[in-house]
Amino acid sequence: MTSTTTDPAPFPRPGGFPVVGVVGGGQLARMMQPAAVALGVRLQVLTEAPGSSAAQVITPAPVGAADDLDALRAFAAGCDVVTFDHEHVPTPHLRELQAAGASVRPGPDALVHAQDKTVMRERLTALGVPCPRWRRVAGEAELTAFAEEVGWPVVLKTPRGGYDGKGVLVVDGPDGGWRATAAGWWERGELLAEEHVPFTRELAVLVARSPSGQAAAWPVVQTVQAGGVCREVVAPAPDLDADLAAHATATALRIAEGLGVTGVLAVEVFEVERGGRSEVLVNELAMRPHNSGHWSIDGAVTGQFEQHLRAVLDLPLGDPRPRAPWTVMVNVLGRPDPEPRHADLFRSHLHVMAHDPGVKVHLYGKEYRPGRKLGHVTAYGDDLVAVLDRARHAAAFIAGEIDE
Amino acid sequence: MTSTTTDPAPFPRPGGFPVVGVVGGGQLARMMQPAAVALGVRLQVLTEAPGSSAAQVITPAPVGAADDLDALRAFAAGCDVVTFDHEHVPTPHLRELQAAGASVRPGPDALVHAQDKTVMRERLTALGVPCPRWRRVAGEAELTAFAEEVGWPVVLKTPRGGYDGKGVLVVDGPDGGWRATAAGWWERGELLAEEHVPFTRELAVLVARSPSGQAAAWPVVQTVQAGGVCREVVAPAPDLDADLAAHATATALRIAEGLGVTGVLAVEVFEVERGGRSEVLVNELAMRPHNSGHWSIDGAVTGQFEQHLRAVLDLPLGDPRPRAPWTVMVNVLGRPDPEPRHADLFRSHLHVMAHDPGVKVHLYGKEYRPGRKLGHVTAYGDDLVAVLDRARHAAAFIAGEIDE
Repeated sequence: MTSTTTDPAPFPRPGGFPVVGVVGGGQLARMMQPAAVALGVRLQVLTEAPGSSAAQVITPAPVGAADDLDALRAFAAGCDVVTFDHEHVPTPHLRELQAAGASVRPGPDALVHAQDKTVMRERLTALGVPCPRWRRVAGEAELTAFAEEVGWPVVLKTPRGGYDGKGVLVVDGPDGGWRATAAGWWERGELLAEEHVPFTRELAVLVARSPSGQAAAWPVVQTVQAGGVCREVVAPAPDLDADLAAHATATALRIAEGLGVTGVLAVEVFEVERGGRSEVLVNELAMRPHNSGHWSIDGAVTGQFEQHLRAVLDLPLGDPRPRAPWTVMVNVLGRPDPEPRHADLFRSHLHVMAHDPGVKVHLYGKEYRPGRKLGHVTAYGDDLVAVLDRARHAAAFIAGEIDE
Repeated sequence: MTSTTTDPAPFPRPGGFPVVGVVGGGQLARMMQPAAVALGVRLQVLTEAPGSSAAQVITPAPVGAADDLDALRAFAAGCDVVTFDHEHVPTPHLRELQAAGASVRPGPDALVHAQDKTVMRERLTALGVPCPRWRRVAGEAELTAFAEEVGWPVVLKTPRGGYDGKGVLVVDGPDGGWRATAAGWWERGELLAEEHVPFTRELAVLVARSPSGQAAAWPVVQTVQAGGVCREVVAPAPDLDADLAAHATATALRIAEGLGVTGVLAVEVFEVERGGRSEVLVNELAMRPHNSGHWSIDGAVTGQFEQHLRAVLDLPLGDPRPRAPWTVMVNVLGRPDPEPRHADLFRSHLHVMAHDPGVKVHLYGKEYRPGRKLGHVTAYGDDLVAVLDRARHAAAFIAGEIDE
């Protein structure tokens, strides 16, 4: 690999190893570090604030906002490749970095599909990818017209800036409490309206693609969301029809190719029953390691963080196959009403590890806050019911939902 | 856990997570970082030099020598627990740190048995642990007397400071080239003479023990050494008699308990044939994660680096069982005659990963040097012959021993 930067990296690089810069200091950047340590790859992180989840374990970690072009420029100058913990870097900034010679992976032309849901819907529709019915709507009248066509309720989304259920409203009828929330959204431009899909369950298809065009897919997983936030993931998705799994995987690979994705692509889909048979409709895209892939750290031959680094460095991709018949990942989410004792996350190790020496606990170095993703737990084995129970127990104990 | 330090840690600690300080910036400290990232534990490293293997991926990384008491004191003041990448911290220094309130794990009374081979032999003999015959010898006359009793050749060792074959001589007879090397050794005090054991093979037993006294053992592994340096490890040891494996494991656990070890203890043993049956004799001890346990990172439910952190923090220990029928670890060692192209270790990923998407490569961020441990490779699966071949191929390619 030839360095594409104009300035030398700020540290010596024995072995010729490249420097990967991650914009954003959250847990996704943090979890790239174990993979980077093994591969010999050097990471640095552009962190929103000192002491972030990633900055605790990655050095150097300069402080800068994801929309601060000067900070991005200075950061990218020390990196061979720039990648992301989130989707919040403005497209024009990414183009500026490219113009200055940086390898931005995924690039702005791909990433915009994970940044702007309307752009994503237009492109997926053009690619022939099955989606819920959707429309750009400029105000309540257009929303009502769309809803009367597809049937209430409908889903109203801000094209940009939403994540973990933010920027998404379920609209039951022309009147309702949703209008107060949406009032501020209309001012910022057209919104995206989608039919409310009565899904059987939610699935996710994770794939990785390298600049050379190599791609690899993990097995399709089942995800359980609550309030727009991922709660648990089962790999592989239980009782999933093999043809539907193959179709969903082919769809995700087609999206990765069609959009020119580099790195991990998560395709969140609805499984729906239509005319007596199961189909999948694409819900959301993410172009980075994703919560629905955390199971792969302990559960697959190649975890998503290692695969993302391999992909953005254009290295050959690793084997994505699972290592156990069943792997379950459960998020540790801050309770709505935490008590002071819950803040002592370290103490939770004592019970969780004594109760189950085989459960794998991942904590993100964050302060306990209501609703926050504080960590996740993974269990694996031959018996799905037992594995689910183990992972749920550990996550609930760490979160403080149960006391034993 | 209550902090035992007198000064506050130098960074905020959301979640109440402790700080573990590692003395020594080698690959063993480096490989603790992935485990620490998952557990939420904060690491810092006292590194011999900036940019060391560990300092590339652990922050903070103050620079200081392992025998510099002031540097050790300042470092320990910011740690809840102090542990080690090597055995080179002088015992009096460790006692000073303890007197200042530091939790030193393993403590000096245990660690001395991994620092001084004569002290180790005395103690193991007192515990009834089977060892090669041995004697303290003050000069050539005593060495010759010992050798005439047990038979030539004998092994002559410096009690302190040896590792990876250094400080060890095989002495064939009263005269020979060894006398020039040993001449400098005698000046430093008594040496250790041991019978030269005609072993069938070398094995290693890794166990971990916590301050509370909980212990866990990985399966006994087979190790292959060349020139005193570990080349490859097979887990579990093939065709090992089950009773002998149980006996070897019980012996290692007895040593851990008898010596009051905290953290990982590696017991290197010789398998020998005596009177038509196999026995084991203890060769060396190490009280830290050990090369013979690297297989466990990818090959066991709980890897040795996670287990070491759990043990020194007095957390419940994790499940040490293997995840596959066979796991093979092969070291990547610098060739005696490297060519410039071998220095570009990153490039080796291209072929190795394309050739075998399931092999796990671990590189240590080191400059290529003859004989140096640059990294290791792990493969696992159902067929030992295939797994051995995969791991050996990848390691040989990275080292530059083969070209395809």
